[in-house]
Amino acid sequence: MIKILVVHGPNLNMLGRREPGVYGVETLDQINVRIEAKATELEMEVRLFQSNIEGEIVGAVQSAVGWAQGIVINPGAYTHYSIAIRDAIAATGLPAVEVHLSNVHAREKFRRRSMTAPVVTGQIVGFGGDGYVLALDALKRIIERES
Amino acid sequence: MIKILVVHGPNLNMLGRREPGVYGVETLDQINVRIEAKATELEMEVRLFQSNIEGEIVGAVQSAVGWAQGIVINPGAYTHYSIAIRDAIAATGLPAVEVHLSNVHAREKFRRRSMTAPVVTGQIVGFGGDGYVLALDALKRIIERES
Amino acid sequence: MIKILVVHGPNLNMLGRREPGVYGVETLDQINVRIEAKATELEMEVRLFQSNIEGEIVGAVQSAVGWAQGIVINPGAYTHYSIAIRDAIAATGLPAVEVHLSNVHAREKFRRRSMTAPVVTGQIVGFGGDGYVLALDALKRIIERES
Amino acid sequence: MIKILVVHGPNLNMLGRREPGVYGVETLDQINVRIEAKATELEMEVRLFQSNIEGEIVGAVQSAVGWAQGIVINPGAYTHYSIAIRDAIAATGLPAVEVHLSNVHAREKFRRRSMTAPVVTGQIVGFGGDGYVLALDALKRIIERES
Amino acid sequence: MIKILVVHGPNLNMLGRREPGVYGVETLDQINVRIEAKATELEMEVRLFQSNIEGEIVGAVQSAVGWAQGIVINPGAYTHYSIAIRDAIAATGLPAVEVHLSNVHAREKFRRRSMTAPVVTGQIVGFGGDGYVLALDALKRIIERES
Amino acid sequence: MIKILVVHGPNLNMLGRREPGVYGVETLDQINVRIEAKATELEMEVRLFQSNIEGEIVGAVQSAVGWAQGIVINPGAYTHYSIAIRDAIAATGLPAVEVHLSNVHAREKFRRRSMTAPVVTGQIVGFGGDGYVLALDALKRIIERES
Amino acid sequence: MIKILVVHGPNLNMLGRREPGVYGVETLDQINVRIEAKATELEMEVRLFQSNIEGEIVGAVQSAVGWAQGIVINPGAYTHYSIAIRDAIAATGLPAVEVHLSNVHAREKFRRRSMTAPVVTGQIVGFGGDGYVLALDALKRIIERES
Amino acid sequence: MIKILVVHGPNLNMLGRREPGVYGVETLDQINVRIEAKATELEMEVRLFQSNIEGEIVGAVQSAVGWAQGIVINPGAYTHYSIAIRDAIAATGLPAVEVHLSNVHAREKFRRRSMTAPVVTGQIVGFGGDGYVLALDALKRIIERES
Amino acid sequence: MIKILVVHGPNLNMLGRREPGVYGVETLDQINVRIEAKATELEMEVRLFQSNIEGEIVGAVQSAVGWAQGIVINPGAYTHYSIAIRDAIAATGLPAVEVHLSNVHAREKFRRRSMTAPVVTGQIVGFGGDGYVLALDALKRIIERES
Amino acid sequence: MIKILVVHGPNLNMLGRREPGVYGVETLDQINVRIEAKATELEMEVRLFQSNIEGEIVGAVQSAVGWAQGIVINPGAYTHYSIAIRDAIAATGLPAVEVHLSNVHAREKFRRRSMTAPVVTGQIVGFGGDGYVLALDALKRIIERES
Amino acid sequence: MIKILVVHGPNLNMLGRREPGVYGVETLDQINVRIEAKATELEMEVRLFQSNIEGEIVGAVQSAVGWAQGIVINPGAYTHYSIAIRDAIAATGLPAVEVHLSNVHAREKFRRRSMTAPVVTGQIVGFGGDGYVLALDALKRIIERES
Amino acid sequence: MIKILVVHGPNLNMLGRREPGVYGVETLDQINVRIEAKATELEMEVRLFQSNIEGEIVGAVQSAVGWAQGIVINPGAYTHYSIAIRDAIAATGLPAVEVHLSNVHAREKFRRRSMTAPVVTGQIVGFGGDGYVLALDALKRIIERES
Repeated sequence: MIKILVVHGPNLNMLGRREPGVYGVETLDQINVRIEAKATELEMEVRLFQSNIEGEIVGAVQSAVGWAQGIVINPGAYTHYSIAIRDAIAATGLPAVEVHLSNVHAREKFRRRSMTAPVVTGQIVGFGGDGYVLALDALKRIIERES
Repeated sequence: MIKILVVHGPNLNMLGRREPGVYGVETLDQINVRIEAKATELEMEVRLFQSNIEGEIVGAVQSAVGWAQGIVINPGAYTHYSIAIRDAIAATGLPAVEVHLSNVHAREKFRRRSMTAPVVTGQIVGFGGDGYVLALDALKRIIERES
Repeated sequence: MIKILVVHGPNLNMLGRREPGVYGVETLDQINVRIEAKATELEMEVRLFQSNIEGEIVGAVQSAVGWAQGIVINPGAYTHYSIAIRDAIAATGLPAVEVHLSNVHAREKFRRRSMTAPVVTGQIVGFGGDGYVLALDALKRIIERES
Repeated sequence: MIKILVVHGPNLNMLGRREPGVYGVETLDQINVRIEAKATELEMEVRLFQSNIEGEIVGAVQSAVGWAQGIVINPGAYTHYSIAIRDAIAATGLPAVEVHLSNVHAREKFRRRSMTAPVVTGQIVGFGGDGYVLALDALKRIIERES
Repeated sequence: MIKILVVHGPNLNMLGRREPGVYGVETLDQINVRIEAKATELEMEVRLFQSNIEGEIVGAVQSAVGWAQGIVINPGAYTHYSIAIRDAIAATGLPAVEVHLSNVHAREKFRRRSMTAPVVTGQIVGFGGDGYVLALDALKRIIERES
Repeated sequence: MIKILVVHGPNLNMLGRREPGVYGVETLDQINVRIEAKATELEMEVRLFQSNIEGEIVGAVQSAVGWAQGIVINPGAYTHYSIAIRDAIAATGLPAVEVHLSNVHAREKFRRRSMTAPVVTGQIVGFGGDGYVLALDALKRIIERES
Repeated sequence: MIKILVVHGPNLNMLGRREPGVYGVETLDQINVRIEAKATELEMEVRLFQSNIEGEIVGAVQSAVGWAQGIVINPGAYTHYSIAIRDAIAATGLPAVEVHLSNVHAREKFRRRSMTAPVVTGQIVGFGGDGYVLALDALKRIIERES
Repeated sequence: MIKILVVHGPNLNMLGRREPGVYGVETLDQINVRIEAKATELEMEVRLFQSNIEGEIVGAVQSAVGWAQGIVINPGAYTHYSIAIRDAIAATGLPAVEVHLSNVHAREKFRRRSMTAPVVTGQIVGFGGDGYVLALDALKRIIERES
Repeated sequence: MIKILVVHGPNLNMLGRREPGVYGVETLDQINVRIEAKATELEMEVRLFQSNIEGEIVGAVQSAVGWAQGIVINPGAYTHYSIAIRDAIAATGLPAVEVHLSNVHAREKFRRRSMTAPVVTGQIVGFGGDGYVLALDALKRIIERES
Repeated sequence: MIKILVVHGPNLNMLGRREPGVYGVETLDQINVRIEAKATELEMEVRLFQSNIEGEIVGAVQSAVGWAQGIVINPGAYTHYSIAIRDAIAATGLPAVEVHLSNVHAREKFRRRSMTAPVVTGQIVGFGGDGYVLALDALKRIIERES
Repeated sequence: MIKILVVHGPNLNMLGRREPGVYGVETLDQINVRIEAKATELEMEVRLFQSNIEGEIVGAVQSAVGWAQGIVINPGAYTHYSIAIRDAIAATGLPAVEVHLSNVHAREKFRRRSMTAPVVTGQIVGFGGDGYVLALDALKRIIERES
Repeated sequence: MIKILVVHGPNLNMLGRREPGVYGVETLDQINVRIEAKATELEMEVRLFQSNIEGEIVGAVQSAVGWAQGIVINPGAYTHYSIAIRDAIAATGLPAVEVHLSNVHAREKFRRRSMTAPVVTGQIVGFGGDGYVLALDALKRIIERES
């Protein structure tokens, strides 16, 4: 059974309450339910993690080594400056999908820069909570093709 | 039945023959077969279009108005400088998904800039031909939610 | 009788339907009617041309040599990056007026750069379809003064 | 009767004497005569103002409130750095046309930046003294359409 | 009674001992005493928080929702790069005042950039510990005016 | 009795009439009444000055030498480019507070640069007319501490 | 017999008539005669192609695959921004020589940037029509050495 | 007898009192005495002018036309941004020498840019009041050589 | 006995397992053994600390005050953006040596910027685990010379 | 008989031994033999010069005046920053060809800037030792056409 | 007797022959005669030095220590990039005057940057050979005032 | 016996006399004595070289090929712009250590850029003369590990 680590970055615990015009009305719990349902459908196992602390996200990503076959990560605001998370993803050597709820390219200019994008396999951007579901689908195809 | 315009930009007609280390070994015809199969599965109708000429892509995008409910577009090299294609997409007022086969963020710096990204709904980047399949899936969810 | 080539660039065929908040509700046909009426009033002859394809606009501008005494051109999105159109205008050696319907200086930053502005005689920006009418007036004064 | 404030910025009092290769041989008085003739033709009333002092131009622009229905302004060198004049124009809430005698885009790079352009209705650039005449014409159309 | 969250960022626990030429000789405890005294005077209730950890500050700011009517925050070094704290402040939807002890504009160039400034109500910069006292005063006026 | 020079820059004479969404509905006269009331409360004497002319503001700031113990200055648009006013403030050697009515960091990018900020003691930004009141309070604390 | 594709970009059809001070008085037909004469001398076969349309140049370059052993290309204005032509050249995997008639380094700054230079074998710049003759010579040496 | 206009810009009336560590202890009156003495020695006539107002400096420079054979100007802070003064100097067509008391290249970065330098004959920088004396000497040589 | 704090930043706990081509095969434990051996040889006492969390590193550096005479720090990815760690180092007032295992100058451009370099005594870069040993040697010489 | 100075810049004496993957296996002596053979074929006389010292290259270029009719120069690393060599080439007033062995546009970004390119007649880049041979050919055509 | 080292940089040995439109018709020998005459008039002793080699200029400047009381230096092209000459001037601790024959501010952009300007006492720019004469005069005043 | 070339760049011959606040009071001879003592201790042989001339340093570095197993180089001011020295170091293929006496990161901004850093093995920065001693130690470890 394919095992996937799903990491939610800072302020994603505020989803639904935080600027719904930008991020939608779905809460993180609701998104997590959808992620788990999709995982079941795809016969994958997911481990869900959220933290506001950059270094804890680094640690969570490191912990994927030896357990997971792939990573889905929405680094939130850290996307744009965290070289530490970038280094952690690269260190795992695992396929990873970067997800963003909103279309970061249509917002402030600094949100167009992603420190993590060059070290992941691909990005899924702008589809709200659907992004995670699509990411699991994408990861499954990648992992099955590689194995 | 949801109708979708799928646009392939310059040099995508070379797929399979062109730098397979970067773009994979799948040909455009093979990808198109996969797109049509997925469309059938999702009960969508797709119209497929490829051109090397920026202005023809502008025209194809314009032609979506009144026929399609959504657009999947891989503007290829034009992604990085075509304000004309950007304007055409914005002019349609339709939901659109930008697809890139390779992870453009892990290549030359000029490939990180997308002129079209701010006017589409979302991007799917780095999953090879799977990107189109995921894009149809994403568009279906968007269109059904809006209607 | 003074002969003038009038060139409309990409997406201008969508006028009236395309983002009327930005570009107004007048269609290109309606503007062309106004251009011809003004030309008749000023005893000028106009040839009207529209294309979405950069290279066709290059060709149209080249064709002005030997026929027209002046050019009115709205290069649309190509304004901001087409060195090819710039070179074509310079190659004609004719007085030319660059027209923009919207105030490009009040929009996205990339619309403030004009590749063609340094090689035309002058610009008329921000007056919608009136811009073409004013441009014919301006060209007439320039051509009569020079001759 | 439509009332228009016409503002000439620094060094425009030197016209005809100052670098005629760049600015032409017409003096400011001669241009003002032409402006008044055009105003009479269009049944408009104009008030003419020239100053070398940025803050006096700010004051003149402010004074348009309650008297004029539109502004024609050539801020001269202040175009490129005067946020104060920009703020004054925006504060009036009136339609305004920015005029430049020479084609500023074909000169030094710093003359391509206009601080005032984003807050005016439109620009007319590169037609010498004709620019003011065209500006009155343009303003008349705008004001009549709005009223 | 108005409730205010006061957040002190990294290294502010070193105040008094850390470069007194730049930050003054007052300790954080002494400043907190002054804040509480001022709050009592203004009939406000304050909750005081300090952390060196960016993600903990994100969490503290989030916790203001539902308890506080306003935020006073000195993000310290994080001011200049923490998009995560910026997002947290924006997510609360509360009026916030950014305080800096030293005049950041008179120091290294990188201290002139504030990631948080665009999402707060106002800044008070350069007055040492007085800044917090002024901030409470400012917040009280804002909250009373809004209610 | 502490004497303070209060300087209002260009367009501030338009307050209340000028873009109230940005600058509020209070007029400069109303703000000046509040400044004088606060000064009376703090047992300070204020001299109020407004000009649209950069060089007159330079002169006013110079005149503070030998009369005032401190300066409150809102240089308005000149904030962003007037090295002359910067030099004048530095030449006085007096403590000075820079005030801005609106949050300049949340507006156009060019308003984030302050030429004067590095030579004043501190800034108070974004609190409308309250900013002047807070500035008097801040200056009083500074002057009393220094003396 | 070595086969070479020779591609002339936009506005090169205007040679001899277009700004002879910059580009010389030789027409494209005259240059083509010289190219064919040199090819005969070197026992090479050349196919000559000119277009103003970027996408047609892309197509012509693609067509070299399977027919030519090398490419001589003067992308004209497209040199400076066409990532599409760059990608097409790279996709062929053939040795290519970029030719410019004028010394692009001694002209406007934007002509110093070449998008195609990094993917060709070499450049020959500034020798007018001679550049093509030298390019054939250079290509012959490269192809013979490689084979 | 050679006639020279000498222009002192903003804050130079504060000399001697203003940051003597940077600008020296000599007052403007003392410098003017030295200028007049040198003029007498060189059999030149000087007219001395100081203003804090940019537009008045523009006017003073314009007034040199028809009276002076040369200009000595220290534009003070306006050096770094006044395109208006630059245009005025260029409009006179007279030889001009730009003087700075302090070595502007050894101070803040923004003082290294001179808007006026490209339109004067030469600069003399960093010699305090001696700069004016050297400038008169230089101008005399230039004017005598040209005549 | 000289006391030294040794701080390892984010992802250094992954050494040996993380991209050995870049960082070598030595684990952090092996490096720490070497550090302690060298300390013993130099008659120094070391305290070893590793964290992935920026704010914990800030805290660890602060804790050196009153205990250590010097700091050896490899801030890892935080090197390139952590103003908080920079401020903490500066606040201690202790001599500090910045160590990097790989030659950061030969990698991605963003790794060439060090926020901490301006506040440390010196850097040792590119020597793998040897860097720490050399750093202890360097610190000993500095501390003995100062005392 | 046409006389040509051929100048080889720094490190070219290392050819064949220095990074053959980049610069090829041919030594400078072998290239010089080829240059002399080609010169004999073209009935030209060449003087060959190599130096690692920028100022000696300046001197060699100066020495061409009065002896040579043209210059072939590969300034090596000095290409990218030597304004002194640029000035020397311009001072000779002779036609000059800049040669580079490798395709500098496909290497580090700083190698794309050439200080000398704007003052030479043309460049030949990327053809290894063949470049010199082509350069002699090009120079012969230029000199014969001019004479 | 005051002793002055006069240093002429690269290509100045070409004066009179090199681009007289830019640098004038006077040769270096003629300028040196004028320098010596002025020195005699001012009762100074000069040592004259010219080299095209940056490092020899470094050596010459170093040699001023212990012999000269001041330096006049025209670093020619090295002005714009020689940190080595800058460091040498600073190392002498002597007053130095930087001279340029032409107005470097009115030429190519790269000539506006001076690496040496921040470490000299002053600059004299744009007066041809007169610049050296003025520099001796300036140095004499500085040295006499200091002693 | 390991042989090492030690290269000192421009102005290092002035050590002890040159700005001792920045570079320390030790002379180059004293440092060289220390280097030789350390070499003896490590059983290495060193060849010491100093020059102010960039091209001579290039030559010295080239001469290491075939004699030395490693290079210690302090390129002094040339560090920041000498691509020629960079190319020479890379051409040797030897391990090299870049040494700087002062902490270049804490000085002028242009000293933060090193052209040579990407081609050396490592840097040792900020430890005065100790840097060379540490560099020998580092080189010995590298060479012994590689052999």
